[in-house]
Amino acid sequence: MASPKTPPPLLYADSENSADALYFGRVGVPDAFVALQSGKKKYAVVSALEFGRVKRTSAFDVVLPLEAYVKKARATWPQRKAGPAEVIYLLARELKQSRFTVPEDFPAGVYEQLYELGLDLVIADGPLFPGRENKTPAEAAAIREGNRCSAAGIAAAERVLRESKIKGHRLIYQGRPLTSERLKFAIELACLEAGGASLNTIAAGGDQACDPHDRGTGPLRAHELIIVDVFPRIAATGFHGDMTRTFLRGRASDAQRALVAAVRAAQLAALHAVRAGVNGRTVHGKVVEVFTARGYETKQTPRGSVGFFHGTGHGLGLDIHEPPRMNGTLDRLLKKNSVVTVEPGLYYPGLGGCRIEDVVQVTSGKPTMLSRYHYNWELR
Amino acid sequence: MASPKTPPPLLYADSENSADALYFGRVGVPDAFVALQSGKKKYAVVSALEFGRVKRTSAFDVVLPLEAYVKKARATWPQRKAGPAEVIYLLARELKQSRFTVPEDFPAGVYEQLYELGLDLVIADGPLFPGRENKTPAEAAAIREGNRCSAAGIAAAERVLRESKIKGHRLIYQGRPLTSERLKFAIELACLEAGGASLNTIAAGGDQACDPHDRGTGPLRAHELIIVDVFPRIAATGFHGDMTRTFLRGRASDAQRALVAAVRAAQLAALHAVRAGVNGRTVHGKVVEVFTARGYETKQTPRGSVGFFHGTGHGLGLDIHEPPRMNGTLDRLLKKNSVVTVEPGLYYPGLGGCRIEDVVQVTSGKPTMLSRYHYNWELR
Repeated sequence: MASPKTPPPLLYADSENSADALYFGRVGVPDAFVALQSGKKKYAVVSALEFGRVKRTSAFDVVLPLEAYVKKARATWPQRKAGPAEVIYLLARELKQSRFTVPEDFPAGVYEQLYELGLDLVIADGPLFPGRENKTPAEAAAIREGNRCSAAGIAAAERVLRESKIKGHRLIYQGRPLTSERLKFAIELACLEAGGASLNTIAAGGDQACDPHDRGTGPLRAHELIIVDVFPRIAATGFHGDMTRTFLRGRASDAQRALVAAVRAAQLAALHAVRAGVNGRTVHGKVVEVFTARGYETKQTPRGSVGFFHGTGHGLGLDIHEPPRMNGTLDRLLKKNSVVTVEPGLYYPGLGGCRIEDVVQVTSGKPTMLSRYHYNWELR
Repeated sequence: MASPKTPPPLLYADSENSADALYFGRVGVPDAFVALQSGKKKYAVVSALEFGRVKRTSAFDVVLPLEAYVKKARATWPQRKAGPAEVIYLLARELKQSRFTVPEDFPAGVYEQLYELGLDLVIADGPLFPGRENKTPAEAAAIREGNRCSAAGIAAAERVLRESKIKGHRLIYQGRPLTSERLKFAIELACLEAGGASLNTIAAGGDQACDPHDRGTGPLRAHELIIVDVFPRIAATGFHGDMTRTFLRGRASDAQRALVAAVRAAQLAALHAVRAGVNGRTVHGKVVEVFTARGYETKQTPRGSVGFFHGTGHGLGLDIHEPPRMNGTLDRLLKKNSVVTVEPGLYYPGLGGCRIEDVVQVTSGKPTMLSRYHYNWELR
C-alpha cells in the first residue's frame, strides 16, 4: 500500500475467514464488517455486539457504530436495503475518499452495488497487503509456535504408533484396532493442549495416503507407510503451523525405505536451494531432479496421478496456503523474510505414500528452520 | 435454483469457508475450485491433488482435471494469466452456457474478469441456494448431533465448575485458580471427544460476559455469572451445534436470580412464538416485551451497550450464522423446516451477563427442539 498511486484498502469480511481482515485490524470479528483506510487512519464499522471489544483491543484508529450508519442509510435511500455497500458509501463520503483498493476475493455483490453508487474500486492484482509476505520477527515466532503445536501432534501420533501392538498386519492400540480416527484424535488433543486447533488433520495409511488430501479413515496397518500432516491454527495469534512426517510401525521393505530416502533427499535438496532471489520453480525443480535421478516417475493414470504431483511448498502465515507458492508452473522469486513449507512427496498405490514437510523462513543465505521434529520413521 | 429464468449456479470457493460450495458438492476441498451447473449436471474442476477423492466421494456428476484447462487457457491466451476466470470461460464455452448465477460473496476479481471475457453473471439477491434453509430430516439430525456435541462441552464446563472449590471470591480447580482458558480447554476437549471442533468457545464471567463476543480471559470468580457458549462444527458432516448456558458457582444474589429468570422467561416467550409464517421480528418482539415488562432497559453508554442489544436468533446449519435472522430490524416470515437459535440475553456491567440459547426447527405448530441441556444454573 506504499505507492501513492494505490488507493487505500477497503474490506468487507470477517476475520475468521479473511486473513486480510485479521492482518489489517488485529482483532477477531466473526461476522463480516466494513474496514477501510483513509489517510493514515484505519476505520472499522461494527455492530453493538462487537463495538466495545474492537474499540478496546484492535488496531483500528476509529471504530464506528454500524447501527448509526444503517439508520443514516435508511434515511438517505428509503427504497434501498441498508446493506454494507450503503454503509461504505456513506462513510467514504464523510471521509471525502472515493477510491479504494479491494482484494480479489472482495464480495461481488457489494462490489457491484458500490459501482452503482459511484465509488471507484480497484481490484488488487495479487495480495491486498503485500507486506503480509514479509514476516516480522514476531510473526516468524508465531509460526514457530504453530509448528511447536504441529510437532506436539506428530509426537502424540508417534507415541500411539509405538504403543500399538503388531498382530500380523494389524495394529492394536489399548486393546482395540488402531484407526485413522483414533490417531487423529490423539493428534488433535495434543494440539489443543499446545494452544492450537488442528482441523482436517491427515493420518492416512496405505493406499489412502496416496491421495495427499485423503484424511484417512478406518484401520491403520502394520508395515505400511502412514502420513501424518498437522496444520493447526494457534488461537492466540491466528498464525499456523504445518508439518508432515511419515511413519511405519513394524518392518519396512526395501522399496519403502528407498521411497522415504528419496523424499528426504529431495527435501534436503529443496531446502538447500531456498534463498532470497531464487525462483520458486527452481526449488521445485530440485525435487523433481532427485526423483527423476532415482527413477520415480510421475504420471496420470485413469484412477488419478502417481509419483510427485503437487507443489513443493506454499507460503504459511495467517492463512494455511498463501503466497509464495513453489511449484512447476509459477515463475516467482523468493523474497527475504517470507515463510514457506518445503514438502516433497511420492505416492504409489500398492507401495504407499510418503511426504515430509518442514517450514523455513527465507534469508539471503541458508533458510531459518521454523519447524523441528526428528526424521526417524521406522518404528520397529 | 428451480425457476427456469434463474441461470444455473457458478462458484469459485473452497468448501472450508464456503458453506455453499460444501452444500453443492458435498466434499471437502481446502483450496478454491470451480464448481458449476449446466442442465441437470454438476461440474467441478479440481487439481490432481483433489481429483481422485472428489471423483470418488462428491455429489459432482462430472469432475474435470484443472491442469488440462490451465494448459488450454495458456494456449488460448498466451498473454493472460491462466486463472480461474479463464478456466470457467473455457468450460462454459464447451457447455454452451453463457449465463450463471453467482453468490453475493463470489470473488470480485474473478467476477470482473469473467465480465471482460463476456460471460453474463447474475449476482444472487439473497442466498444462492434458498433450499439450504429448508432442512431435510438428515440435516436436522446432523444439527441435533452438533448440539449433542455442544451439550457435551457445556456438561464439561458444569463439571469443572462444580468441582472447583470456593475460596472467598476465588474459584480453585485442581489446586490452581480456575480461568476462562482452563474452562475453555475442558469444553473443547469434550467437543473433540464428541466428534466436533469447537473454535472461539466463550467461557466468560463477570463484566467480560457483558460483551457477548468476549471469549473470556483470566480468572473466573465465585458468585458471578459465567456465560458458556459452545458452537462446534461436526467434522463428519460440516453441520454445527450452537448452545449457551449461564452458570454461577457459589451463591447468587437476588438481582442475579431475577436477571436469569428474565432471560429464561424471554426465551420461553420466544420459543412459544416460533412457528412457520410468523415474522422473525415478532419473535424478537416477544423477548423485548418480557424484558421491558420486568424493567430491564436497553441503552447505549459511552463504554458500549447494556441490556439486550443483539438479535434473538439466527439460522444454523453448514454456517454458524445463516438465514433466517430474527431481530428487531428484519421483516421476514419464518419458513417451515428452517432451523434457528433462540438466544435472548441481558448484559449489565456490575451485575453480569446472562444468555440462554437453544436450537429449534420451525414447524407449523410447536417448534421441534434440536438441543437439550438442563437449565439449573446456580451451582452451590
